[in-house]
Amino acid sequence: MTPVLADSVKLTDDGVLILDRRRFPFAREWVLCRNSSEVAKAIEDMVTQSSGPYFAALYGMVLAAREAAGLRPHAAYAYMEQAGVRLTNARRTNNHLRKAVHAVLSSVSGSGETLLSSALAGAQAGDDLYRGRSAALGRAAASLLPDEGGVMTHCWADLYLVDLVAAAQRDGKRLRFFCTETRPYLQGARLTAETLAEMGVDTTLISDGMGAAVLQSGEVDALVTAADRVTMTGDVINKVGTLGLAVAAAAFGVPFHAMVQAPDQDARTADDVPIEYRPGEEVLHTLGIRTASEKVRGLYPAFDVTPPRFVTTIVTDRGPFEPHRIAEYYSEGEQNQ
Amino acid sequence: MTPVLADSVKLTDDGVLILDRRRFPFAREWVLCRNSSEVAKAIEDMVTQSSGPYFAALYGMVLAAREAAGLRPHAAYAYMEQAGVRLTNARRTNNHLRKAVHAVLSSVSGSGETLLSSALAGAQAGDDLYRGRSAALGRAAASLLPDEGGVMTHCWADLYLVDLVAAAQRDGKRLRFFCTETRPYLQGARLTAETLAEMGVDTTLISDGMGAAVLQSGEVDALVTAADRVTMTGDVINKVGTLGLAVAAAAFGVPFHAMVQAPDQDARTADDVPIEYRPGEEVLHTLGIRTASEKVRGLYPAFDVTPPRFVTTIVTDRGPFEPHRIAEYYSEGEQNQ
Repeated sequence: MTPVLADSVKLTDDGVLILDRRRFPFAREWVLCRNSSEVAKAIEDMVTQSSGPYFAALYGMVLAAREAAGLRPHAAYAYMEQAGVRLTNARRTNNHLRKAVHAVLSSVSGSGETLLSSALAGAQAGDDLYRGRSAALGRAAASLLPDEGGVMTHCWADLYLVDLVAAAQRDGKRLRFFCTETRPYLQGARLTAETLAEMGVDTTLISDGMGAAVLQSGEVDALVTAADRVTMTGDVINKVGTLGLAVAAAAFGVPFHAMVQAPDQDARTADDVPIEYRPGEEVLHTLGIRTASEKVRGLYPAFDVTPPRFVTTIVTDRGPFEPHRIAEYYSEGEQNQ
Repeated sequence: MTPVLADSVKLTDDGVLILDRRRFPFAREWVLCRNSSEVAKAIEDMVTQSSGPYFAALYGMVLAAREAAGLRPHAAYAYMEQAGVRLTNARRTNNHLRKAVHAVLSSVSGSGETLLSSALAGAQAGDDLYRGRSAALGRAAASLLPDEGGVMTHCWADLYLVDLVAAAQRDGKRLRFFCTETRPYLQGARLTAETLAEMGVDTTLISDGMGAAVLQSGEVDALVTAADRVTMTGDVINKVGTLGLAVAAAAFGVPFHAMVQAPDQDARTADDVPIEYRPGEEVLHTLGIRTASEKVRGLYPAFDVTPPRFVTTIVTDRGPFEPHRIAEYYSEGEQNQ
């Protein structure tokens, strides 16, 4: 079955509907964004995350086209560029937003109906492209896993994980998953564990501190996460917590496979990737309930950087690469994918 | 100032009062245990933890003496032995309970008033002994830390941490602490961070998955935790999550100091230490609120085992030892301390 989260952004006549991942699975509520600026705000507010912002930005740009449809071509394009900047800046570490905005901007032309239909075509092509690449990536990742065994994952790898599991199921593999809950937002507990269970996978939830002990136990054959970004020198930037699991996996001989569509040519090393710090207050709460007193200060680096020596494989839509060979993803002169 | 948690078990005429650490710091409620069996139940139910159960068991044995005071000496002793077994079995990984029960049992004699006063004397001697050893340990641990710098800690090291901080403050050291929240019970968020703040220490709370990133950042000069048990071959058994931090600390060149009064002669290796598995359901909740849906199963190994290769120092009441030399704690023929 297709899990709910695999299709959690919808374009309607009224705007873009985004499934509220902050409340899922306890509530299944959709946030209606009536214009591109509201889409940017929703992304900023974490209504959706992981690959959700990519789809939200695609259709947010269609809303921008609707807003600009009455303008002349040049002014309409300038308006959409502005909307694109606002969307891209909503979150900074991942390059999904930039790609989504580019997918629509590079296909728009004209004004009025032409602008609308070209924007929609661009968004749909971006949607299809992402899903196709994710499916290829999922097949490549599944091929690295044993026919039967344990897999640990962290945070929420979204479509990559759904496609990995779908490919493994088609191949008749029997995988058991261990998911970390991924504080403070609990994406692992609420999104990953829920979706794996929806897909009929044997799923065990652990808290973030338990990963090393489970990796040491011998019950895990591979650590598999998404990567928000991979540098050309093989650094893996992903949700904070990935680094600790990767280091423990290396210490206990468990391979770590990081899934990303493509490495980022704009990031040669991790120094080229800004790490987002979110408000420390978020660490002092769980689902809105305080978990520490007013006396205490929180710190929330949202991502961490796993150096290539702790990474076994970077799995892309063009197959698996060793981290020190990830630059070979691109053929000579090829642009960022 | 003496923080609240440094004196959180009190003997009264009505029974033993135990500060409820499950609700601290949001509520400061004391649970009254009217007999030794209720003390065992409170320990089992995690009303108190870390060194709390040691003090609770000491005074729980005084309640057992009150219950047995009307019996003849032999029957009274047998009754107290039974109560001691019940207390010791309340939690299995830590050897505090065994020691507390032994402290009282080894000092009781007679019946009636003699039994009562000898039990109380045994409990008080056990209390003084523990505090004295903890103070020595705290001084030894503080001496390993820089005059100014960052310290990371996990879970709640209780009196060892209070004594470490007190010693560092006496020495004029300026330490900044990073505390992991320690899911699922949040001992780090609720007990450690609160107590450090009460003691005037610069305190930053992080979630459990952030430890490796903060250790990688260069802001931490030492990882310091308690150990529930240390084997004669230098394994450190402590709250689950310690292993992951220790492995990351080793990877990023940060020393890891584990604090324990003494290694356990009854545990040559980690195979001799039963690891407590608590109900997996506890991982699916935070402060009583569900954090994952009914579809998902939780796993809760309460402790993990850090092999000596990831440990820099084991700090005892007799000073610091390298883990492979921890057996030298004991002089020849000396019994378990």
